[in-house]
Amino acid sequence: MEKKELVYEGKAKKIFYTDHENYYWVEYKDDATAFNGEKRGTIVGKGELNNRISSIFFTLLAEQGIENHFVKLLSPTEQLVRKVRIIPIEVVIRNLAAGSLAKRLGLEEGTPLRHPVIEFYYKDDELGDPMINSSHISVLQLATQEQLEEMKTISLRVNQILTRYLEKREVLLVDFKLEYGITPDAKLLLADEISPDTCRFWDANSKEKLDKDRFRRDLGNVEEAYQEILKRLGGEVHV
Amino acid sequence: MEKKELVYEGKAKKIFYTDHENYYWVEYKDDATAFNGEKRGTIVGKGELNNRISSIFFTLLAEQGIENHFVKLLSPTEQLVRKVRIIPIEVVIRNLAAGSLAKRLGLEEGTPLRHPVIEFYYKDDELGDPMINSSHISVLQLATQEQLEEMKTISLRVNQILTRYLEKREVLLVDFKLEYGITPDAKLLLADEISPDTCRFWDANSKEKLDKDRFRRDLGNVEEAYQEILKRLGGEVHV
Repeated sequence: MEKKELVYEGKAKKIFYTDHENYYWVEYKDDATAFNGEKRGTIVGKGELNNRISSIFFTLLAEQGIENHFVKLLSPTEQLVRKVRIIPIEVVIRNLAAGSLAKRLGLEEGTPLRHPVIEFYYKDDELGDPMINSSHISVLQLATQEQLEEMKTISLRVNQILTRYLEKREVLLVDFKLEYGITPDAKLLLADEISPDTCRFWDANSKEKLDKDRFRRDLGNVEEAYQEILKRLGGEVHV
Repeated sequence: MEKKELVYEGKAKKIFYTDHENYYWVEYKDDATAFNGEKRGTIVGKGELNNRISSIFFTLLAEQGIENHFVKLLSPTEQLVRKVRIIPIEVVIRNLAAGSLAKRLGLEEGTPLRHPVIEFYYKDDELGDPMINSSHISVLQLATQEQLEEMKTISLRVNQILTRYLEKREVLLVDFKLEYGITPDAKLLLADEISPDTCRFWDANSKEKLDKDRFRRDLGNVEEAYQEILKRLGGEVHV
């Protein structure tokens, strides 16, 4: 497989064409942003850590029957994925109140939710990624109602699989964000990444944050938190 | 029927007990607030105008099969309603983009929506009435999913009835907010008010605003707009 020209550069990844029309070449970056780009920085080694963490999660999910875009690792910071057109909706699943949900509903961070909460956000930097509902999605024609139902069902199943898997590794899955894409043959496919950039992970015992909140909130030991997650997943950390 | 002690004083209405356990006595006030209470003022005659406008809409809806809490007018500013426990959810139906929707989705005010948009807001002043979805409603146990479905169905039907009725009076129903309550015998009932305080009404030809946006945005002729709506509904305006 050959790396071709850049398709798109996002906040945390670069996407390249390959010489095969059904695949993209993804490069994970060390760049970190928060609060819709207002806060910017670098988390040393993040590109490699998230590339490897994402590949572990996507492999696990594929084994458990959740098809996704991940194909294989290409280098420490690169992976091959199936080509999709990303649906501009972030699906957020929450098991405990944190971040914007804690604020929105006036709940203390860490409050357990009686069942997983599912939210949709419109991926639009200029609008600040606003929360939207199925009615907005339909009016904006971002996805069909069938695609939305499928995204909900898959996301809740992903939550079950990841929650159980992480529990055994003493990590609490507080919440996470998923993105989906449409393949050239019109199939809905789980895509993007699953990493400490896109999930809230807490140590199950100490409740210590092991995710991007350490960067967002200037809590220090950011790199160490990302490394710790890879370790818990059984990956070797090269520092 | 006798007016008894105050149950609750809201921004635009006072609710009193009566000597009958199944009824409340409602007094509409001239007080106006906007932006979650940050802007305050008085719209002279609003209490009387909204009391009469609401009673016209609720009577129309009852005739069209939409049961609601309105019983009868008691005075120019007062009406008798069935007693309900208000569900703390605002149901917003939108036909054209305006206000927070225009901002949220980056649409120009007045953009027609390809179908009515339905939104839920959590009635909580301290939280600033945040937008919520069915998943939040379920986690907070604000309403059952059956009640929510019923609220959606009724609200869309109300939209059809009011849109057609207002069209004939050359008024565009841009959007509106409804509230529901639970009667002592556990029935879901449309409640609160339907007035220029809770709807966006535009003149169908000039697109002139005939609602509370004139107050919110300091457009002047606020009283005249409310009077104009009553006139269009066939009511006599006493100035």
